[in-house]
Amino acid sequence: MQQRSKQEYHVSLIVQKFGGSSVADAESIKRVAKRIVETRKAGNEVVVAVSAMGDTTDELLDLAGQVAPIPAPREMDMLLSAGERISMALLAMAIESLGHDARSFTGSQAGMITDATHGSARIVDVTPVRLREALDEGAIVIVAGFQGFNRDTKDITTLGRGGSDTTAVALAAALKADVCEIYTDVDGIFSADPRLVPKAHKIDRITSEEMLELAANGAKVLYIRAVEYARRHGVTLHVRSSFNNNEGTIVYNPTDAEPFGPATVAGSQAQAARAADAGQEGSEGAVEEPMIAGVATDLSEAKITVVGVPDIPGKAAQIFTIVAKTGANIDMIVQNVSAASTGLTDISFTLPKSEGQLVLTALRAEQSDVGFTALQYDDQIGKLALVGAGMRTNAGVSAKLFTALFEAGINIEMISTSEIRISVVTRADTINDALRVVHTAFGLDAAEEAVVHAGTGR
Amino acid sequence: MQQRSKQEYHVSLIVQKFGGSSVADAESIKRVAKRIVETRKAGNEVVVAVSAMGDTTDELLDLAGQVAPIPAPREMDMLLSAGERISMALLAMAIESLGHDARSFTGSQAGMITDATHGSARIVDVTPVRLREALDEGAIVIVAGFQGFNRDTKDITTLGRGGSDTTAVALAAALKADVCEIYTDVDGIFSADPRLVPKAHKIDRITSEEMLELAANGAKVLYIRAVEYARRHGVTLHVRSSFNNNEGTIVYNPTDAEPFGPATVAGSQAQAARAADAGQEGSEGAVEEPMIAGVATDLSEAKITVVGVPDIPGKAAQIFTIVAKTGANIDMIVQNVSAASTGLTDISFTLPKSEGQLVLTALRAEQSDVGFTALQYDDQIGKLALVGAGMRTNAGVSAKLFTALFEAGINIEMISTSEIRISVVTRADTINDALRVVHTAFGLDAAEEAVVHAGTGR
Repeated sequence: MQQRSKQEYHVSLIVQKFGGSSVADAESIKRVAKRIVETRKAGNEVVVAVSAMGDTTDELLDLAGQVAPIPAPREMDMLLSAGERISMALLAMAIESLGHDARSFTGSQAGMITDATHGSARIVDVTPVRLREALDEGAIVIVAGFQGFNRDTKDITTLGRGGSDTTAVALAAALKADVCEIYTDVDGIFSADPRLVPKAHKIDRITSEEMLELAANGAKVLYIRAVEYARRHGVTLHVRSSFNNNEGTIVYNPTDAEPFGPATVAGSQAQAARAADAGQEGSEGAVEEPMIAGVATDLSEAKITVVGVPDIPGKAAQIFTIVAKTGANIDMIVQNVSAASTGLTDISFTLPKSEGQLVLTALRAEQSDVGFTALQYDDQIGKLALVGAGMRTNAGVSAKLFTALFEAGINIEMISTSEIRISVVTRADTINDALRVVHTAFGLDAAEEAVVHAGTGR
Repeated sequence: MQQRSKQEYHVSLIVQKFGGSSVADAESIKRVAKRIVETRKAGNEVVVAVSAMGDTTDELLDLAGQVAPIPAPREMDMLLSAGERISMALLAMAIESLGHDARSFTGSQAGMITDATHGSARIVDVTPVRLREALDEGAIVIVAGFQGFNRDTKDITTLGRGGSDTTAVALAAALKADVCEIYTDVDGIFSADPRLVPKAHKIDRITSEEMLELAANGAKVLYIRAVEYARRHGVTLHVRSSFNNNEGTIVYNPTDAEPFGPATVAGSQAQAARAADAGQEGSEGAVEEPMIAGVATDLSEAKITVVGVPDIPGKAAQIFTIVAKTGANIDMIVQNVSAASTGLTDISFTLPKSEGQLVLTALRAEQSDVGFTALQYDDQIGKLALVGAGMRTNAGVSAKLFTALFEAGINIEMISTSEIRISVVTRADTINDALRVVHTAFGLDAAEEAVVHAGTGR
């Protein structure tokens, strides 16, 4: 509401991101063009970040695999960057045919300056000089998502998975946009994956910290990197559907005064906002009760247990130095209490399945030096994460979570907590049951079932 | 042969151009990569200009038509330039997987500076600094054909039809290449289209002037613009098949001392060269007999006749000023002798069928001012052009041509001549017969029929 009334006093700058499924064919592109024009007609300046059409990236990857077993990374980026060039030019044409000036810009033309890491480049600077000029001339600006440019090598780079989200957020930060709208094929961020929990409810507002925890624990709608970038630069995100005009989910930074005003209670502005959404007053009752934003599950991880580690100082450091050298992304770490009789302990950690064999090999090579007894590898685990503000200060949350799982007969194998998250590991084949019972136990079920669209946002 | 012995003394720089049919799929790209690597292994520096894969350009044009009835030209160039980006990256990957360093460059990275005419930009400068650096580092250089960059607008441009040939020739000129090889799906330039004249023979050497006349009169293998650029900058072309290692057709500039030595006879070095090819000495007999390079036919033109033009000075100028304002490309012009009784004459000219209605409309609008009686439009004509050096000084050529057509019962409707060409217009449905009888009459038939590959080179 504040957003809308602001537009009466000054021109808003809105960045919109459309993923591959939103521009999959000519009809979709025309539909998106109309939507963009509506935003422009409402008096806003509009900058659009767009992904490659539908399956284009997969088709290009397939071609690359056919001509070279291990394609050169520089050439792979050159190849993949063709995808957004096609979608953005078509989108600009479609907008122009609706009578509005539109101009498309590649990553380098848009000033997306990155390091030289082909395939997963990091943004080092954004210099949107040409975009600002085009906006000043009244044009709608279309920018290729996912791609950048390195100043030293003068080569094209790509940002890796979820790169178009990152492009949109980086443009919003550099252009000081009022909001960055992420269009996708679902209505917003849900309290759980609606394909797994039909009664999941759409979250109206969520803090960037909570969103980060959800994304890190398996929520696929937004990429962690884009959320991190948004949090660091104070960009407000609006995740919404490209298939309807419903309000989606606002992902905001609670330390920012705008657009939701100063925090009225310490610790959890999200609580107050959500309480307000629910038509409640921001009463003390609402503040004391921890507010759960959502539950996410993840089946992509495996667990490695290092068995029989001597319980002497420095051993954990030694093990995780070996693991770190492989470049693996460790998630949860649990060390059991040492058995007094043996002086040995077990250390377990989770990591992406794709990195499992690499880490096992590295650890085996150092077995005699570290002095552990054995390695166990388990790729049949599932992870469930409950995310919400003020969780750790309220012991009742853990108790309610563990009770719900116990009553459903689901065994907990690992536990890990943060300020706003509790994660548990269970058997993989029980994770969907776990998700549903936890969602219900915390009162997250909506009155009606959500409508789920096909496909996934990119 | 001189080419080959030169390589023993210095490193040659060879520019190779591969059209869309040569890189239509992954297998073709791998084949082309092997061929490029062979050239590199022979000790040459290699720069490759490559077109978009197979039907990519048509598919992109089709998509553009679906999203916008009249796509914006700037965006169309952005769109189409994605095509070469895909093919060149794949080709570079394929070469790298064969163990050779390869780097792909877009038009702008390669320094192809053009004017700002989207869709048919003209090259104004070539600054291949990055290409020279890459060559000095031992890399094989792959350049996107067809595309350029305007310095003022900082926008991507495309060169229009045959643009990849032009890219290759412009790179060869700027890098002072020893030869520019144009790879296609036929064995070279033929004395007539082998699909129409099975006994057409491959031409071993042809001057750029003769090639220009053949291209302007319907030979499709090379584009006029690339031949003109090659002639102006002294670039030697070698048109050859990408399906075998046969020598193709050398298109050379007879005023250059290299690579065929100084002219030994005035007027027609091609004659001597062709006589030498045939195992003959460059005798006087060979010089006196005009040497026919080839015969081309063209069914893409129409004829407009302006009937009853007052035969007073300035009327032709008035008519062709009106025509010029439409931007139409006039080819042949014939003015009949005025009938003494009426003081009126007829003026006929040919032009591409696609421009016919535009010119008719322009002329009709000025009918009363010019004072002609009527306009006739005829799109059922065919044009045949006989090309060869020293033709106009030898009356026997015209006589032989007209006799051959007369004996075959083919009526001549218009005649036009240049220093090295005679063109005639006939009914469209007789043009293929005309081609065959003329080819035979001038002794151009080969002993064996040519092998014709499917598709057309781009």
